[in-house]
Amino acid sequence: MSRIDASFSVCALFGFPARHSMGPAIHNAAFDKLDLPLVYVSHDVAPADLPAAMAGIRALGYRGLSVTMPHKVAAMALVDEVDPVASAIGCLNTVVQRDGRLFGYNSDGQGALDALQRAGIAIKDRQVLVLGSGGAARAVAMTVALRGQPAELEILGVVDAELDALARDIADKAGRKVGARHLDSEALAQAMAKAEVLLHCTSVGMTPDTEKSLVPPALLRPELPVFDVVYNPRRTRLLKDAAALGCKVVEGMEMFLGQAMVQFELWTGKPAPAETMRAVIEARL
Amino acid sequence: MSRIDASFSVCALFGFPARHSMGPAIHNAAFDKLDLPLVYVSHDVAPADLPAAMAGIRALGYRGLSVTMPHKVAAMALVDEVDPVASAIGCLNTVVQRDGRLFGYNSDGQGALDALQRAGIAIKDRQVLVLGSGGAARAVAMTVALRGQPAELEILGVVDAELDALARDIADKAGRKVGARHLDSEALAQAMAKAEVLLHCTSVGMTPDTEKSLVPPALLRPELPVFDVVYNPRRTRLLKDAAALGCKVVEGMEMFLGQAMVQFELWTGKPAPAETMRAVIEARL
Repeated sequence: MSRIDASFSVCALFGFPARHSMGPAIHNAAFDKLDLPLVYVSHDVAPADLPAAMAGIRALGYRGLSVTMPHKVAAMALVDEVDPVASAIGCLNTVVQRDGRLFGYNSDGQGALDALQRAGIAIKDRQVLVLGSGGAARAVAMTVALRGQPAELEILGVVDAELDALARDIADKAGRKVGARHLDSEALAQAMAKAEVLLHCTSVGMTPDTEKSLVPPALLRPELPVFDVVYNPRRTRLLKDAAALGCKVVEGMEMFLGQAMVQFELWTGKPAPAETMRAVIEARL
Repeated sequence: MSRIDASFSVCALFGFPARHSMGPAIHNAAFDKLDLPLVYVSHDVAPADLPAAMAGIRALGYRGLSVTMPHKVAAMALVDEVDPVASAIGCLNTVVQRDGRLFGYNSDGQGALDALQRAGIAIKDRQVLVLGSGGAARAVAMTVALRGQPAELEILGVVDAELDALARDIADKAGRKVGARHLDSEALAQAMAKAEVLLHCTSVGMTPDTEKSLVPPALLRPELPVFDVVYNPRRTRLLKDAAALGCKVVEGMEMFLGQAMVQFELWTGKPAPAETMRAVIEARL
């Protein structure tokens, strides 16, 4: 019989579409595991309906939200307070309601940092190289800059305006100078020679182009840990090449898990049951 | 592991308070039984928040609502269409969303009619006596008048203005003349002598005053079926007296079940699993 009685509060995903997310399966399994009076559902929210939907969760007393495309920027203006990391990234993916006030967070970058930490990979005082300047790269690079205390942070990307804006924003928000260069083979070779941690944050290698990698295997070294934001496939060409050389590798699945764990902890105030949540994700990837 | 994934839609109770309702346990058990992609939660909605909450369920695509105190009248103005029975009663307790439009219903009276039918008690062409003129009596008497085809309907109550308004509304909405008299011992004796079905719709006999009954046992006859809207206790003094005489009796619990079954059928379009729902109610009463 269902656990759910009148004492339960609701967490939800807002997306458009929201109907294929793993979020409900992951978070409901975690709520069940800790026997918490919470249930997680998905809502398809059309962009024009976002203000009414956000007003709705206030009136309905939702505990919190996951927010995904296309609402991550627009939702910023509809919460009462935005966490400094989310503000610096420029979008949120998590909302928590406390005493009728909505607080916005971005758990994506922290999810990546936590995944690295679980894998025993240090960021602090290391030379960190980020590939990419899109949404995922922005969340990861900004969070590394604000929270990771790297020795230096370098970002290579192909969309120069986006790359320059990201470097400028990191300088502004994190007070930290960032090396930002156009991604070509020469820049990549130079950056890879210095890098002590590689964070791949583009979509290269994602299904169906699973044999592609931005990084020639000759640029990898066994002592260079490699993280890939792509989680479909779990083991990308880049991670296969790195693992074959003996590098520590971190799959994008671990960041996906990590950001969900951060959300769980924001909503519940309790440590997330990592193994329960990982099992749901692994069963569905 | 939780059944609930991203395909699920939400039904909810709006109340203030809503936190002690059996609704979530009953409806989630029924959704589980039929393996439907629906989940039911409770929302405490303050009166001032009702418009935002109703706009919210549009934006969030809720399948439907149960609506209870203090929102049953105010919600009428916030739906797109009101069913004629709910409109005649003057309040709704059920909302269904179809293609973005909200439809209001009142399942209380139909729940009583269905409970009588399940017990094999006919209303059609019978002399029906309703005791009471409050909210429950109004829903039951109006639904009997509109849907039950009684030979005659008589209502006795002690709040004369309320009683007169109910009789007038039944004449207006159902085009049916109703006998309405002040409830005193003489009127009761005369009405009981004629009655072929007795529907007790006041709170007399409810916990803690479980030894009270409006009807002296001397007025009961074995061939007179007796329904009591009170469900706490399940077996009221009135029903005990009637059952001791050999009358067919119908507990208020069966109306409570019946209105929930009507709601389930409105939201899902499927026959409600009565035994599953009854088992949840019995376990909690």
